[in-house]
Amino acid sequence: MIGVFDSGVGGLTVLRAIRQRLPHEPTIYLGDTARVPYGTKSPEVVIRYSRNNASLLLRQGVQMLVVACNTASAHALEVLRAELPVPVFGVVEPGVEAAVRARPGGRIGVIGTAGTIASGAYQRAIEARTGTPPTVARACPLFVPLAEEGWTEGPIAEAIAERYLGDLRGKLDVLILGCTHYPLLRSVIQEVVGPNTLLVDSGASVAEVLAAEATEAKGATDRPPTHRLLVTDVPARFEEVVTRFLGERPERVEQVDLEPSLW
Amino acid sequence: MIGVFDSGVGGLTVLRAIRQRLPHEPTIYLGDTARVPYGTKSPEVVIRYSRNNASLLLRQGVQMLVVACNTASAHALEVLRAELPVPVFGVVEPGVEAAVRARPGGRIGVIGTAGTIASGAYQRAIEARTGTPPTVARACPLFVPLAEEGWTEGPIAEAIAERYLGDLRGKLDVLILGCTHYPLLRSVIQEVVGPNTLLVDSGASVAEVLAAEATEAKGATDRPPTHRLLVTDVPARFEEVVTRFLGERPERVEQVDLEPSLW
Repeated sequence: MIGVFDSGVGGLTVLRAIRQRLPHEPTIYLGDTARVPYGTKSPEVVIRYSRNNASLLLRQGVQMLVVACNTASAHALEVLRAELPVPVFGVVEPGVEAAVRARPGGRIGVIGTAGTIASGAYQRAIEARTGTPPTVARACPLFVPLAEEGWTEGPIAEAIAERYLGDLRGKLDVLILGCTHYPLLRSVIQEVVGPNTLLVDSGASVAEVLAAEATEAKGATDRPPTHRLLVTDVPARFEEVVTRFLGERPERVEQVDLEPSLW
Repeated sequence: MIGVFDSGVGGLTVLRAIRQRLPHEPTIYLGDTARVPYGTKSPEVVIRYSRNNASLLLRQGVQMLVVACNTASAHALEVLRAELPVPVFGVVEPGVEAAVRARPGGRIGVIGTAGTIASGAYQRAIEARTGTPPTVARACPLFVPLAEEGWTEGPIAEAIAERYLGDLRGKLDVLILGCTHYPLLRSVIQEVVGPNTLLVDSGASVAEVLAAEATEAKGATDRPPTHRLLVTDVPARFEEVVTRFLGERPERVEQVDLEPSLW
């Protein structure tokens, strides 16, 4: 069973890619919707929340853990790998790998949350893989609320993308979308950076890495595997967006509590 | 001692108004920066977090509690009033009171987070006070991230304000800013709704109510009272914005943990 956690709903696109690539593998997804977003918070807090999430999923018996959230991957991956008894996969390295393979020797840019970019995780991974730092690494804080508001096209989305990225038009061979929400803004981002820049979705890339590492569950039959969806805030609003992000309507969404009451 | 809590930094404007109005009263402020924002979360989660915050402040010995966050006021005020042994003040009623007094019989509008507007708290308070529901009650989810990004003027802020509020130009006598972040966008909001609409800041209004209720600390001397600032995420970034919101540089900001580790 593969466990996937994210700060909220964005990681469902990662889950979707994993399910498509490993159709016989049972999965369990945890969205920390009561504490979302992680991208504006400190490394200390993101590491604490990531430990809570990982701990819950391990108690459910996962044999493999995917950190779908870029900010959690950037801050907490090393800690989780050092402390957990199962393989842990983040989205940073797969995203960088996909970018380098697609445009070898090309000029690479990366965009993400304030936390992801400040961590330097993408910058280090790109330099480790290519020998040079990225051409640009930039935080775009309004992209997440813009995608959540559903204003993914039109003049406001275009103006915000232009303000963050307008100076990069024609200057990159590949731009890594280092946040699971950003693919929702793919068309306005592409418009601003120009048609010769390839956009790489880190979240989608992790499914390929996982498929190479994972041995499918023994005794896989034609019976579909079980999939569970857990959230930390009440599931009502979550269910509405699951269908859009996941591409299918979930049977049910369960609520879990990561914070014992102090009251 | 007056305790004030907020989901993050916005409530510092409320604290500032209280300190100006009650200069001899010691205060303690708690910003739940590790779990901010509240405006996108469910009533259940906001009530749980509000209880955590209130409980911590009561253990510090506050004799009066101010819920500076509009979303927490909207969802949790009744619960806190029923359960706590000290007077509890929210920002909804003072905001409505100030709006009605400023424009008696006028057309009232209110804007706030998705949670605040969905709660109906402002709508009920306006109807209770005037006998009629507000002319309009509307969520403006992008205003908080916009203010936090610091884009409080210019074409992007204007376009977003126009999209949310453009149809209200000239149609209101008073508009309640039902979120502590919104006063930072005051000038673009005023531009869009037109010069004849008075903007009322709910946060500033609560200081007046408090001053009327509070008996200043006995034995007040010329010695300045103690003020403490607590946060749940690491205080580094918080200190940067405290000065802007509070109008003075704080001596120090302390970190507290509301969530015992489950790890």
